[in-house]
Amino acid sequence: MTIGLALIGAGRIGKVHARAIAQTPGAKLVAVTDALAEAASGLAAQYDAAVKTIDAIEADADVAAVVICSPTDTHADLIERFARAGKAIFCEKPVDLSVARVRACLAVVRAEKAKLMLGFNRRFDPHFRAVKAAIDAGRIGTVEMVQITSRDPAPPPPAYAAVSGGIFRDMTIHDFDMARFLLGGEVETVQASAAAIVDPEIGRAGDFDSASIILTTADGRQCQISNSRRATYGYDQRIEVLGSKGAVSAENQRPVAIEIADAEGFHRPPLHDFFMTRYIEAYAAEISHFVAAIENGTAIAPDGEDGLKALIIAEAALLSVASGRRVALSEI
Amino acid sequence: MTIGLALIGAGRIGKVHARAIAQTPGAKLVAVTDALAEAASGLAAQYDAAVKTIDAIEADADVAAVVICSPTDTHADLIERFARAGKAIFCEKPVDLSVARVRACLAVVRAEKAKLMLGFNRRFDPHFRAVKAAIDAGRIGTVEMVQITSRDPAPPPPAYAAVSGGIFRDMTIHDFDMARFLLGGEVETVQASAAAIVDPEIGRAGDFDSASIILTTADGRQCQISNSRRATYGYDQRIEVLGSKGAVSAENQRPVAIEIADAEGFHRPPLHDFFMTRYIEAYAAEISHFVAAIENGTAIAPDGEDGLKALIIAEAALLSVASGRRVALSEI
Amino acid sequence: MTIGLALIGAGRIGKVHARAIAQTPGAKLVAVTDALAEAASGLAAQYDAAVKTIDAIEADADVAAVVICSPTDTHADLIERFARAGKAIFCEKPVDLSVARVRACLAVVRAEKAKLMLGFNRRFDPHFRAVKAAIDAGRIGTVEMVQITSRDPAPPPPAYAAVSGGIFRDMTIHDFDMARFLLGGEVETVQASAAAIVDPEIGRAGDFDSASIILTTADGRQCQISNSRRATYGYDQRIEVLGSKGAVSAENQRPVAIEIADAEGFHRPPLHDFFMTRYIEAYAAEISHFVAAIENGTAIAPDGEDGLKALIIAEAALLSVASGRRVALSEI
Amino acid sequence: MTIGLALIGAGRIGKVHARAIAQTPGAKLVAVTDALAEAASGLAAQYDAAVKTIDAIEADADVAAVVICSPTDTHADLIERFARAGKAIFCEKPVDLSVARVRACLAVVRAEKAKLMLGFNRRFDPHFRAVKAAIDAGRIGTVEMVQITSRDPAPPPPAYAAVSGGIFRDMTIHDFDMARFLLGGEVETVQASAAAIVDPEIGRAGDFDSASIILTTADGRQCQISNSRRATYGYDQRIEVLGSKGAVSAENQRPVAIEIADAEGFHRPPLHDFFMTRYIEAYAAEISHFVAAIENGTAIAPDGEDGLKALIIAEAALLSVASGRRVALSEI
Repeated sequence: MTIGLALIGAGRIGKVHARAIAQTPGAKLVAVTDALAEAASGLAAQYDAAVKTIDAIEADADVAAVVICSPTDTHADLIERFARAGKAIFCEKPVDLSVARVRACLAVVRAEKAKLMLGFNRRFDPHFRAVKAAIDAGRIGTVEMVQITSRDPAPPPPAYAAVSGGIFRDMTIHDFDMARFLLGGEVETVQASAAAIVDPEIGRAGDFDSASIILTTADGRQCQISNSRRATYGYDQRIEVLGSKGAVSAENQRPVAIEIADAEGFHRPPLHDFFMTRYIEAYAAEISHFVAAIENGTAIAPDGEDGLKALIIAEAALLSVASGRRVALSEI
Repeated sequence: MTIGLALIGAGRIGKVHARAIAQTPGAKLVAVTDALAEAASGLAAQYDAAVKTIDAIEADADVAAVVICSPTDTHADLIERFARAGKAIFCEKPVDLSVARVRACLAVVRAEKAKLMLGFNRRFDPHFRAVKAAIDAGRIGTVEMVQITSRDPAPPPPAYAAVSGGIFRDMTIHDFDMARFLLGGEVETVQASAAAIVDPEIGRAGDFDSASIILTTADGRQCQISNSRRATYGYDQRIEVLGSKGAVSAENQRPVAIEIADAEGFHRPPLHDFFMTRYIEAYAAEISHFVAAIENGTAIAPDGEDGLKALIIAEAALLSVASGRRVALSEI
Repeated sequence: MTIGLALIGAGRIGKVHARAIAQTPGAKLVAVTDALAEAASGLAAQYDAAVKTIDAIEADADVAAVVICSPTDTHADLIERFARAGKAIFCEKPVDLSVARVRACLAVVRAEKAKLMLGFNRRFDPHFRAVKAAIDAGRIGTVEMVQITSRDPAPPPPAYAAVSGGIFRDMTIHDFDMARFLLGGEVETVQASAAAIVDPEIGRAGDFDSASIILTTADGRQCQISNSRRATYGYDQRIEVLGSKGAVSAENQRPVAIEIADAEGFHRPPLHDFFMTRYIEAYAAEISHFVAAIENGTAIAPDGEDGLKALIIAEAALLSVASGRRVALSEI
Repeated sequence: MTIGLALIGAGRIGKVHARAIAQTPGAKLVAVTDALAEAASGLAAQYDAAVKTIDAIEADADVAAVVICSPTDTHADLIERFARAGKAIFCEKPVDLSVARVRACLAVVRAEKAKLMLGFNRRFDPHFRAVKAAIDAGRIGTVEMVQITSRDPAPPPPAYAAVSGGIFRDMTIHDFDMARFLLGGEVETVQASAAAIVDPEIGRAGDFDSASIILTTADGRQCQISNSRRATYGYDQRIEVLGSKGAVSAENQRPVAIEIADAEGFHRPPLHDFFMTRYIEAYAAEISHFVAAIENGTAIAPDGEDGLKALIIAEAALLSVASGRRVALSEI
């Protein structure tokens, strides 16, 4: 049996998912839609899919599932619509910038018993999965401290803050999900400081580009996250977990793993330029998980609740930056 | 335009190439043949290709190129046959175990002006390519010393020596090609010592499992190769190049790049289990180069001459082990 | 000219300094005192020094400087006494557990124009100094984010909290000084969370064994510190600094830098067992700096003010843990 | 009891040993001699030793042992003289450039039952010792292949060949000793190629600056050595050992272990500048071993026989370069 998928949005991340679908046995991209006609037709042609309207996709019996890569402000409506249409749904994070809107949307998903997967791709990175597997296998005992270093190569345009919801909802949200994934227990409080150091314009737009965050669990375990929108040496993505019996870590991946030595010393090339190359295997594994869950009726993770919880931490972080307080998630 | 390819041989390496073809834009696997009917039909079904006889492939106008992955003793005949049929040819190394037979075969290829590419996949590994690019960019000055460490995870069955032609023609031949690729000049002499240390049965079959080789160029530059058929920690593939201004090296690639720390120290998982996973990107890039050369009429490298030269070094190495002498390639 | 030094306290850290003095050209250990007579006489014999009382040391014209390694609660009194006696003073951190007492003590030091150096040994580690030198040379642009990972191999006995003043005044104080050293600007606020995860007895004694701290400067630059009293793999001491143009880091040092590979993977031995071996070069360089400052009349750093500032950050961190607030140092 | 030592030769390596003696409990430098009066008096003053003639040292009952750091052509005579005088002898390698002269000298040592230690300092490097300890502990099974990479930062003046005896007797001799140390069995044959690539003047002086060597044992186990007189990135000293159950390696040591990352990538400083800094711990441990052997009457290793065996391998390597043959040590 082949699962037919429709792609909603043929932009940068849409292309990543189209390729992932093409590489997944048992899956087939059957339809593409995009507000930009050319974007849709180009991608459709490449993968032998049809260009269709959202209405047509909704009505298409050959479409078992949709992959939503359209702008964030369309996500919640589309999720509700396709949930009601009986399609399995993969949606890029976040469901919405508003916690209330996400809660309403997830109520529909629950009512419709729809399958909803959130695009926290990093959970599918083979190296981070191996970190998680080591924890689950008891290799480091009880998790006590998590350290996540997550830095983009270069800042987005300041105007991006308006659509992204700011650094915590856009960028750190991945780290919040990773913290929950690794801590093995729910986050209870957040402390955060943040500033616009890289680009003052980002600050004037009401956003930050440099942030430090402490998350704690009810039993006192801690996670620290370090974010910057500028790492000149490439996309910096590292995790470390300290446990009662040891530690496990995943270093940065390198697209070209050579070293040149000369009179100045030893030199290695920069890291990946961004997420499309760094997480190429993760995107493929993510879609593969989604398709397998549809095929086999198995559980989906991360799901809508995971998306909601990460968003709540983002809200709490914003409140902590502003108030200086340690903010409990229960306040959000 | 799409280039149609036929696969001759649907075994382990044939499957690797079938996947590489499927991932190459502008290429399509149109036919598969194998002495084992099931192997051919399974692979053909997976990639929507037809099962055909060699005769039918030869006559098929939709087949622009063949990828030869059949047993070594069929290579030379197949190359000649498809060269005469006007097909572009990709052939797994070696062309033949006999230098004389290879020379005769290449004469046919030249006479027919056929395109022939040899499967020295390591030249297409992105890390080794980056080493080569650093050399070509003058980063280390003139190449003076090359060190190649090349170890298989586990020895083949002793009987394999009879079909493989022994360690130098089967395994080290890749290192000989890499030495030529990196030295940037022809090898002139060979000194070698070898023994069956890992498995005495391999020795009784007339082969070796552990070998040390020194290659020199006419101007005194040197390459050392270290081979073993057993590296318990995985497929060990490293190169180092020392030049007049510095050095460049490529370390082992790791399928799972995590580190676990505990009271015993720091632990990383083993290397790749073998070439199919270690060189997955190289196999894709290799086929992509072959297809591009057909499409654009550009030069092919490595070609039949490269295959011949590596085989000649293998012969010289065998003679050096037996005689103890530094053997000149001109003797072969 | 040889500088005569007297050692006040012949315990664990006293022995480290005695050896450092012996290795410093132009310095000589002339006297040792300790509440434990045997400790004093043993060390004195080893380095050909005299056992003397504190009174005698104070009166001894051959003693140009004292190295105070006695219990913390004696530091401030001894500093004042030797400042009045005209001796140069090296004192292990902290001057006192009370900020008020430190301020009073430093007033005496200033009034007497005494030379006072604080034992923040890590500033003299050659690797951390190289990090600082890279920053000062402009290699990474403006410092934006500092990450300090600092973990002891094993927790102290719970009763230790009473004499040490707790984790922030005892252990993190080194990290607070390192943060100031690397940030190149004063810390303005502190946010912290801490818990007794490793040993609940430590919690019952009113202390913590696991802490996460965010420091910020007036211009929004940030430092994160991660502390644990238990790292089974050894004494974990790492720093990373992100700047506008790049980053610089110092990895852990390894007493035995070998790697063993086997069927389970790759294995390296644990880190240093604790500060006496990890910072052996730093202790020597620290005493060398102290002696050179006496000889040449050059400035001493870190001095008493550095000790006070680190202690104030520790106080603020304690207040932040308890209150949940971002605490300004100006509150202390 | 304190062992009194006399230093014969106060040059570069003499100074290294004087410092090592000063740091060795139970040892005392009592006398120094050197053809250059100033060199002797300077070093003697620094360590509170007397300047004496060789005759006076020979007659001095307070001198239990001599450390010979004078020019190579004086070694054999001095060893014989001090052996007859009943002194324990530490001698820098080699005993002599002539195998015959070494054999004669060792006959005297044996006849006098003198203690003679050869200065193969690398055996005392803590990292290489840990490699050896891992082998001896059975961590890698039976040793099968050894790889030694040994490169100087810069070539010596061409005229040095005349006094050093050439690269094999001067530089590679350390690697030959290390090969014996690690292989755990005697070397039986040598194959070598060498050239003057770095500096043609070295070639005109009859020496080489780049060499590749294969050593084999009677049971077919192999060691490869790669030498160059020029590594622009510093003093390159690495060993790798492959065994039946795994491998063990020691990477280069770094004087400053930081990494700088910027838009060009990741950068680490060069290696140690030469042996005096790279092997500082080894020199101290070596003298400590010598002194302990005198004090306790325990066995000395490496001894004169080890020096002879390494020299014989050097002779065989020279013969192999010239003849192209695999040379048996039994031929020398």
